[in-house]
Amino acid sequence: MKILEGGLGNVPGFTFSAIECGIRYQNRLDMALLFSAEPCHACGVFTQNKLCAAPVRLCRERINNPIQGILINATNANACTGEEGYKNALQLTANTAASLKVPEESILMASTGIIGVQLPVSKMADSIPSLASGLSADSGHDLSRAIMTTDTHPKEYAVSFESSAGTFTIAGTVKGSGMIAPNMATLLAFIITDFPIERKKLDDVFRACINSTLNAITIDGDTSTNDTAIILAPVKKTPVTEESDIEHFSQALLQLLEALSVMLVRDGEGTTKCVTVRVVGALSVEDAKKASRSIAESLLVKTALFGEDPNWGRVACAAGYSGAEMHEDKLTIDIENIPLLENGVPVEYSDKDIREILSRKSFVITVNLGLGEHSFSFLTSDLSYDYVKINAEYST
Amino acid sequence: MKILEGGLGNVPGFTFSAIECGIRYQNRLDMALLFSAEPCHACGVFTQNKLCAAPVRLCRERINNPIQGILINATNANACTGEEGYKNALQLTANTAASLKVPEESILMASTGIIGVQLPVSKMADSIPSLASGLSADSGHDLSRAIMTTDTHPKEYAVSFESSAGTFTIAGTVKGSGMIAPNMATLLAFIITDFPIERKKLDDVFRACINSTLNAITIDGDTSTNDTAIILAPVKKTPVTEESDIEHFSQALLQLLEALSVMLVRDGEGTTKCVTVRVVGALSVEDAKKASRSIAESLLVKTALFGEDPNWGRVACAAGYSGAEMHEDKLTIDIENIPLLENGVPVEYSDKDIREILSRKSFVITVNLGLGEHSFSFLTSDLSYDYVKINAEYST
Repeated sequence: MKILEGGLGNVPGFTFSAIECGIRYQNRLDMALLFSAEPCHACGVFTQNKLCAAPVRLCRERINNPIQGILINATNANACTGEEGYKNALQLTANTAASLKVPEESILMASTGIIGVQLPVSKMADSIPSLASGLSADSGHDLSRAIMTTDTHPKEYAVSFESSAGTFTIAGTVKGSGMIAPNMATLLAFIITDFPIERKKLDDVFRACINSTLNAITIDGDTSTNDTAIILAPVKKTPVTEESDIEHFSQALLQLLEALSVMLVRDGEGTTKCVTVRVVGALSVEDAKKASRSIAESLLVKTALFGEDPNWGRVACAAGYSGAEMHEDKLTIDIENIPLLENGVPVEYSDKDIREILSRKSFVITVNLGLGEHSFSFLTSDLSYDYVKINAEYST
Repeated sequence: MKILEGGLGNVPGFTFSAIECGIRYQNRLDMALLFSAEPCHACGVFTQNKLCAAPVRLCRERINNPIQGILINATNANACTGEEGYKNALQLTANTAASLKVPEESILMASTGIIGVQLPVSKMADSIPSLASGLSADSGHDLSRAIMTTDTHPKEYAVSFESSAGTFTIAGTVKGSGMIAPNMATLLAFIITDFPIERKKLDDVFRACINSTLNAITIDGDTSTNDTAIILAPVKKTPVTEESDIEHFSQALLQLLEALSVMLVRDGEGTTKCVTVRVVGALSVEDAKKASRSIAESLLVKTALFGEDPNWGRVACAAGYSGAEMHEDKLTIDIENIPLLENGVPVEYSDKDIREILSRKSFVITVNLGLGEHSFSFLTSDLSYDYVKINAEYST
């Protein structure tokens, strides 16, 4: 496996473009297109919010089709916009298909931004021909930039891996950076690969990799109406089916999604730290997940991280109300290699050593429940003044 | 029903005292005692955290006994302190009982403060004789002050009500003000009354009243290890059993707990607003509760409240991921009397009018799910810079 410079542009067969449409703001890229001349298998993981945005509804309807493109816009979520919003998504994807001369049902759509405002459809429709004509293998960076909302920088990653059928690549781009909760949040993620794989297999691998990456991060615990992660892989007559090759693909995809997850949390709204909350020794994976999520989402833990305060009591407390089975006298808590609590008994530690670790941008908190063999990790951010500032000022 | 000045001191038969023991800080009241010469029925609602503090364990064991006193300390939670912590609680209540010449098992204990540090037992034991000798009907205010942690002021309330058996009083004191979540959080609440009522009845009424008051507020969603609400009512040979009298008692207790709940949220850490999130039209009370809790706990809603931003999309979004049954085209959202969304369609509103309401310290957000007859309300605070400041700097 090799990390590649250059992001999305590494994957043969895909082109990209982005423009300044002026959907809500001037002078920023806000509309983008991802295209494959060859039809692709598409798999998607979408928001679990009961209010799902119009583009998510459209994607759910089309995800089983051979897919050739994804139309993406930032600054307007097209959520809580009713039938009109859905018709707007239909129309814009139809326009895109016409410009690209591909079937309407082969175009997906993803949106992010303000909730409850209709898209400026005619302005957007007018931009589609230039989007289509601007497609190029070199414009992946522009696409990554166009989908940003409060992200401070675009996020792309690419890897290559070897298989018995040759060398393949996987590349992806994501955007955060508020409304990030487990189960995807306001997250858009687009992953492309030239690895020819059966659709069912692709779906299995994608979901498994997402469970421990994009579904295991939290910034503010708010699950958005728009979260969408889509992977595209070319439809081939003779897909690779060798188990060891699928395993190589799976490993590469996992690394890619892990890298993108870390980028998301590091660039979370107001985030100054990216902390791994690892729960081990749980009776079940479900318990390990509950405890790590509860710690990762606790405002008191997150403010303590911001304050660089070794307040393990807040960690224990959040594990305690998570619903996971636990017993005080089995509970052990370490920050990196420094034990703070051992089988329920507080451990003397060097204040200097612990503060050195807490001052880092990244470290691991390990909570051992001491009851079983199961583990799970969440990636979390701290909660800073800037999170409040960004979200108090991001106005309707 | 009448609101009474003077707080705890209104209830005949109870005395109070508080002293500066110096448990963790100097020059602050940090130990208090509440006493009844007459044995009382006691009912308690305690934390649902799996890590419960030693005093909570002790209360659970003794709550069915005739109770005469509650020993309370602030600045140290006696949580995550193992068997030693439990033995300390046993010893301190034994010392208290000895000083008061009452049975050991008639004394309860409640603690709040830092987690994972043993109590300075001998220092505290030394303070008990003066605590006991200082008991007076006039010292309720001192007790309210002694139990505070990050509260900015003590919280007391008292009411009287009429019944066929005469006039009775109920008084209570609570402390917050972080780690406040539904299901009690770091909340200590002590309620006393001279109303003679059977224990089973008292328990039923107390739990019912708490469900829509102390269990329906949220500041930061963190459920503490120590939350404790206890009510004491004198054991009498001939309790009042008349249903209409019990109903008067119940109404008065509800008003008292509502008033204390509002005080708690208003004084939540860094809080500038106290907002009622009312969900109506739900298919079940459970759904109404889920949706109102989800909105009330959303960081994005809470930061929007702080920013005085009429961002109803965040309210809809939080209801959407609550798990409650809902449909976009039935959803209606009002802030006070201004409709923002009606059956899924955004409504034009006067920016001036809505900003006037949002600038108030207190207002109601009503979410109508449009599906059924059930409703529930949560009381929530905004999330401000000061919440982050207080919790990043509250050091171990």
